Amino acid sequence: MSDVRLLGTVGDARAFCEEARARGAVVGLVPTMGALHEGHLSLLRRSVAETDVTVVSIFVNPLQFGAGEDLEAYPRGFEDDVRLCAAEGAEAVFAPGAAEMYPAPPVTNLDFGELSAPLEGVHRPGHLPGVGVVVAKLFAIVGACRAYFGEKDWQQLAVVRRLAADLSLPVEVVGCPTVREPDGLALSSRNAYLDPAERAAAVVLQRSLRAGAALIEAGERRTGAVEAAMAEVLASAPLLGPVDYACVVDAATLAPREPLAGELRLLVAAHLGGARLIDNLGATVPT
Amino acid sequence: MSDVRLLGTVGDARAFCEEARARGAVVGLVPTMGALHEGHLSLLRRSVAETDVTVVSIFVNPLQFGAGEDLEAYPRGFEDDVRLCAAEGAEAVFAPGAAEMYPAPPVTNLDFGELSAPLEGVHRPGHLPGVGVVVAKLFAIVGACRAYFGEKDWQQLAVVRRLAADLSLPVEVVGCPTVREPDGLALSSRNAYLDPAERAAAVVLQRSLRAGAALIEAGERRTGAVEAAMAEVLASAPLLGPVDYACVVDAATLAPREPLAGELRLLVAAHLGGARLIDNLGATVPT
Repeated sequence: MSDVRLLGTVGDARAFCEEARARGAVVGLVPTMGALHEGHLSLLRRSVAETDVTVVSIFVNPLQFGAGEDLEAYPRGFEDDVRLCAAEGAEAVFAPGAAEMYPAPPVTNLDFGELSAPLEGVHRPGHLPGVGVVVAKLFAIVGACRAYFGEKDWQQLAVVRRLAADLSLPVEVVGCPTVREPDGLALSSRNAYLDPAERAAAVVLQRSLRAGAALIEAGERRTGAVEAAMAEVLASAPLLGPVDYACVVDAATLAPREPLAGELRLLVAAHLGGARLIDNLGATVPT
Repeated sequence: MSDVRLLGTVGDARAFCEEARARGAVVGLVPTMGALHEGHLSLLRRSVAETDVTVVSIFVNPLQFGAGEDLEAYPRGFEDDVRLCAAEGAEAVFAPGAAEMYPAPPVTNLDFGELSAPLEGVHRPGHLPGVGVVVAKLFAIVGACRAYFGEKDWQQLAVVRRLAADLSLPVEVVGCPTVREPDGLALSSRNAYLDPAERAAAVVLQRSLRAGAALIEAGERRTGAVEAAMAEVLASAPLLGPVDYACVVDAATLAPREPLAGELRLLVAAHLGGARLIDNLGATVPT
């Protein structure tokens, strides 16, 4: 296991990254909320492979949690996380406290218009704006870098790409494929909330996405028909709670397409026991 | 006159600033919309005195102009501007085209809550958000720097300070005193819109501010009484058009204070002929 540098302050993290760039190193950033699983590790390994110095940030960002959400319960395991980062070859872990990141409540708000309004925007209205602020801060602290994000949070990835482009940030945003359990469940720190029966039922999200994608593959071009098939699969599942959305949209803009055409993304969000789970899958209709 | 480097692209500007920092230079940024006057030059001279490499940006930012405002008419004089920058010792002028700064319409929106809602926020609702986006971009392009802004745009200065703090930007925002004509009129590119009679009348903004500050100095602590005195001075002026606001607020938060206490700012905005003029003045009530 290699050494890993622990950075607790904005100033230390900035200095560490500047020093790396000053000697010509390309910096890779893997932003996380900790509770690292194989999904995070896939980002970390890619950063280690593609950059010279990898910094993993671990910060459970209160700004992206709504009232009544799972901020307090969110899984934490700092020592294991640091051990994993070191074992995978990260050079540093940036783990600031909340008072270091937010010495005062921010007055600056970010939103992303049509990109953040649907889907998560409807069901977690402050979530993507809160992600935007913390990601903008991490990018400003780390500076010029390649930043690795999972495709599992597809709308977040779309928002972060636009944030970087719109604000001319010196950051190359890299999207990485979702890592799944053998039965297809997307890895998520929130899977820890599921009991065994719920865990067995959770595969229905992926089944719903595959059913929608199969219909498109078979020639279906009506959004409503695809979304009805996705909803039907979800409705068949035992234990599943409210479905926030099950839909197919343009992969880049997240806007509806009718008829379905081009690069599409099927997305689903549903409650299961004490967890709210999300997943998504790509589909292409040649134009 | 020294040489000045003309930078037309985001990539060139970024590379120029990175190269300067790599050799240990402190970069100074003076963001302008061109039509440089002594107010701008005071910022430029201060940057030249306090930093190693001064970059003046010249960009008439369409995003901060509302429909029906003076985007088309806004004074432009690029060759004179570059000559002035060179003469005052700037190392570079960053003058991107609109398509370079906005290859696509930005989806990312910035706002500043209670700080951008009053005053200019009421009368030019998209203005400060548009300033926020272009300043965030300039800061991301130039990178770590000291950035010089005039106090004449007091609310803008407050917003830019919060933007830099809230997003952990590696930028030290420096506010500089307003430069005035001998009669007290604040220098502004928009003064060029005034005919001689309007120009003579324009001093009323400054007189209004001074009247308010004198009342506070004399012991008045009621916001309404100070604002009434300011309005009365404005009402006495020939030619003056609609007054957008004439008020006294907390200097940092721009929130009302009642009774008046601490660091205050008196601010006025009014139409005169084809121009909309703004000005402001500080006052202190020991607490």
